[in-house]
Amino acid sequence: MLGWLKGYRRAWLPGDLGAGAVVAMMMIPQGMAYALVAGLPPVVGLYASIAPPLLYALFGTSSTQSVGPMAIVALMTASSLAPLASHGSALYGELAAQLALLSGLVLLACGLLRLGFLANFFSRPVMNGFTIGSAIVIAVGQVRPLLGAAPPHWHGPSAALGLGSLALLMLARRHGAALLRRCGLAPGAADVGARLAPMALVAGAIALVAIFGLDRMGVRTIGQVPAGLPQLNLAVSSAHWRALLQPALLIGFMCFLISMSGAQTLAARKGEKLSTDAELVGLGAANVGSFLSGAFPVTGGLSRSAVNFAAGANTQLAGVSAAALLGAALVLPTGWLALLPLPVLSATIIVAVLGMLETATLRTAWRYDRADALALLTTAGGVLLLGVEAGVVLGLLLSMGAMIWRESRPHIAVLGRIAGTEHFRNVDRYEVEIRSCVLLLRVDAGLFFGNVEAVHARVEEELALHPGARELVLVLSAVNAIDTSALFGLLELNAELGRRGVRLHLAEVKGPVMDRLKESSLLDRLSGQVFLTTAKAWDALSASDESWSV
Amino acid sequence: MLGWLKGYRRAWLPGDLGAGAVVAMMMIPQGMAYALVAGLPPVVGLYASIAPPLLYALFGTSSTQSVGPMAIVALMTASSLAPLASHGSALYGELAAQLALLSGLVLLACGLLRLGFLANFFSRPVMNGFTIGSAIVIAVGQVRPLLGAAPPHWHGPSAALGLGSLALLMLARRHGAALLRRCGLAPGAADVGARLAPMALVAGAIALVAIFGLDRMGVRTIGQVPAGLPQLNLAVSSAHWRALLQPALLIGFMCFLISMSGAQTLAARKGEKLSTDAELVGLGAANVGSFLSGAFPVTGGLSRSAVNFAAGANTQLAGVSAAALLGAALVLPTGWLALLPLPVLSATIIVAVLGMLETATLRTAWRYDRADALALLTTAGGVLLLGVEAGVVLGLLLSMGAMIWRESRPHIAVLGRIAGTEHFRNVDRYEVEIRSCVLLLRVDAGLFFGNVEAVHARVEEELALHPGARELVLVLSAVNAIDTSALFGLLELNAELGRRGVRLHLAEVKGPVMDRLKESSLLDRLSGQVFLTTAKAWDALSASDESWSV
Repeated sequence: MLGWLKGYRRAWLPGDLGAGAVVAMMMIPQGMAYALVAGLPPVVGLYASIAPPLLYALFGTSSTQSVGPMAIVALMTASSLAPLASHGSALYGELAAQLALLSGLVLLACGLLRLGFLANFFSRPVMNGFTIGSAIVIAVGQVRPLLGAAPPHWHGPSAALGLGSLALLMLARRHGAALLRRCGLAPGAADVGARLAPMALVAGAIALVAIFGLDRMGVRTIGQVPAGLPQLNLAVSSAHWRALLQPALLIGFMCFLISMSGAQTLAARKGEKLSTDAELVGLGAANVGSFLSGAFPVTGGLSRSAVNFAAGANTQLAGVSAAALLGAALVLPTGWLALLPLPVLSATIIVAVLGMLETATLRTAWRYDRADALALLTTAGGVLLLGVEAGVVLGLLLSMGAMIWRESRPHIAVLGRIAGTEHFRNVDRYEVEIRSCVLLLRVDAGLFFGNVEAVHARVEEELALHPGARELVLVLSAVNAIDTSALFGLLELNAELGRRGVRLHLAEVKGPVMDRLKESSLLDRLSGQVFLTTAKAWDALSASDESWSV
Repeated sequence: MLGWLKGYRRAWLPGDLGAGAVVAMMMIPQGMAYALVAGLPPVVGLYASIAPPLLYALFGTSSTQSVGPMAIVALMTASSLAPLASHGSALYGELAAQLALLSGLVLLACGLLRLGFLANFFSRPVMNGFTIGSAIVIAVGQVRPLLGAAPPHWHGPSAALGLGSLALLMLARRHGAALLRRCGLAPGAADVGARLAPMALVAGAIALVAIFGLDRMGVRTIGQVPAGLPQLNLAVSSAHWRALLQPALLIGFMCFLISMSGAQTLAARKGEKLSTDAELVGLGAANVGSFLSGAFPVTGGLSRSAVNFAAGANTQLAGVSAAALLGAALVLPTGWLALLPLPVLSATIIVAVLGMLETATLRTAWRYDRADALALLTTAGGVLLLGVEAGVVLGLLLSMGAMIWRESRPHIAVLGRIAGTEHFRNVDRYEVEIRSCVLLLRVDAGLFFGNVEAVHARVEEELALHPGARELVLVLSAVNAIDTSALFGLLELNAELGRRGVRLHLAEVKGPVMDRLKESSLLDRLSGQVFLTTAKAWDALSASDESWSV
């Protein structure tokens, strides 16, 4: 907690404050836009950008993570609340905050239980497919506010403003940095400056609306934004917590995955070490903070964090100062924001999510591993056809299925002795000697429920190929753990082989594995022996050959 | 398909026909009882015992599997249908059949997609916890029909009949085989004979009801059983298929797991090889057959299959003859069944599910691996508190969580050379030489999304411990596969190390892994080289030492 504050150096201050200012300027349009995606009033997006980063700074370990509203999580919020409350109702806002609370508690609980390893639950192609599917859903949802009417209709002034903003933002994204560099900015500053295009556009659009009275021509604006910091929210409706629990689990899970994938990329670039457990606690606290502000679920977003990083953030102070600046903006008069036209916010959303549509993963996977490419496409299709929540579940099943499939085919080698040595190697790859009565099998994987059947089947296969074998030695040099399912599997294998007059031996059992096995009945029941080394097993069993080969 | 019929030997016939007769006599009370658990008329349980085993015999590969109604699957059926239709309504029966159809299609689809490895999805403790939780739920649900009234009340004659049956069945289970042996039966025959106690009890109870007119005293009986085979059912209500899809996925999954866990036990005992993919198709066809009979989801049950095995079943003909005998029983007059009292059926259910309450797994796991024991208890508690479907999902998450946790900590060894040889071993376990500029890391696991972060973190750790290292060699002798996520991980590691002036090399890359890598950009971008052996890497990089250590 606050580890970054103890060793703080004054030299870091300019970078942190500068990055804070840049991120605050990014957050004003982004926060409001993602609140709209979540089905909430724009100002709620600003509320979600103040307390959450402050709380994250207390517990999180990433120095550059920028926590706040994020497109995909906003989409999941809207999709979870749609069946429970009508858009724009007071209940909707209450439930959104409660969803943040529950997601936060889920994250905190996972953090306290040290479940940080859950970050490894999604494969990269599945995550990419989920992102692509969600980005398309979000972009399609913004077409109507962009045009000011449901297509194929449009409202002239709104559509002009929306499509014009879209064009400008896309130009800025593609050529903005080059332009700023030609204006004399340093390359780094130019890159960061280009990311402020949405804020500049917002200011320009407000001016346009004010000058030409576009709001009186039917262009919808966000309307009066209440000044002042968010009020403390403690409203918890016990009636809905059961209905919100499942969405909260999925949202908490995705908050964590999205945040970690961004944070890990940046941490690697800074040579920084993240604690996944601390990240869970940091994100959990941030979401509880969002609840207290009456907002909605938040997470760390890669695009905003990358800007924070590029703008020179050295520590969590950057996030703190961004939050302070946003708080100050809310305390100052907010009347000028009222004229911000909605089509412009839609344009910023569309450009932001189009940036998520990267196809490099798909192209690489298509050439490299077709199954991974299909998992990507299936997940994206699942999000589009079945919805974002079904997409998470589908992604989980595909990732887990891939892992189970992999695990159900462990590498198992038949060993022989390199003549004249005490080295034993795979008979398929080396010139080795073997004995007809002794079968040495080395399992190159921990034994657990996912591969215990496969090991048993392989033993049967090898015994069928070596009908003379009367001594089966499992070489466990690569086995780091044996779970309860595999323990039962070994007991059954031992009994099964015993019935056929084949003895089961173990060799090279690792220390921690052996300590565990001593707590079980396996060692007492084992028909054979436990050997320290494969060589000792070989010598002992080859010598006793006659007694058994009769 | 029908592979068992081609090599059929006449000597197998007595065993198959005898086992068929025994299983048919077991199935009459069991089928009717489990239909009650599923919330359906008892006769439907008999319908579920005819077509399904016939279809299973066509496609399945287990010679002793007895497919039909099963307690846990019946419970899942009742729990899935409860929110959709009221008990006893025509819609309820229709939806039960439709659930069998959807579960069957799920199983068939998985079989055709060769997803047999899904049998490895549950750890043994989790499966045991699920079974224990379900057994308790089923037993508790039968207390009311056993007593003829909701406790603490009871209906005298019903309770006497129910509790008396319970006592008799428990005595038969514990002492029946010994008694029959003392009456002169061979041990094997006595064991099988004791399993027919429920059928004998059913016959006796019907006689009691008829003689003493217990039905007129308020003991509820199953009532008129329509004679004749089930009519062909093709009713599919498109309105409900969406609501049934998720339950069908869970039921299909559990049908497969339950069936495989029994079949594998027996197959190992017979030295028989099962095809998990064929089992999926066999079970799928059986469930479609149950739909066509207007019944409900079915699976292979261990207790019935074990009796089939013990009674001498040699091939699938045993199942076929059991089905034929049940069909014959339905074609003959069925009036005698009408007086069968419900409390007796409840007693058979309770005794059957109490047999599932084995605590050996829990006791072993508690001593051997506390985490597995907690997973068992959590799953059982989940079934009891949240319901059987939530229990399946919880079990899945716990099993997968355990696997991810295991996978996220792969074994990685720093290697050194055994002086004067070309052998490289773990520096922690052997006396080896090392070079300060060369770091050799052997990863003892396939590289994939579940461990790519862990590998990266370990590389960072080791580089921090070996600040002089300028050449990092990943020894991939135990790496059987590298998935797309890990490919990206290696690309990023390569770029990352390159920025710090550390070259990344690969050694002992297996053939199939190398073939894949050639389809990627990794080999082009690699800052270092690919070496055939660790020894070659060692020689080359130690020689070039000076050029890099400057």
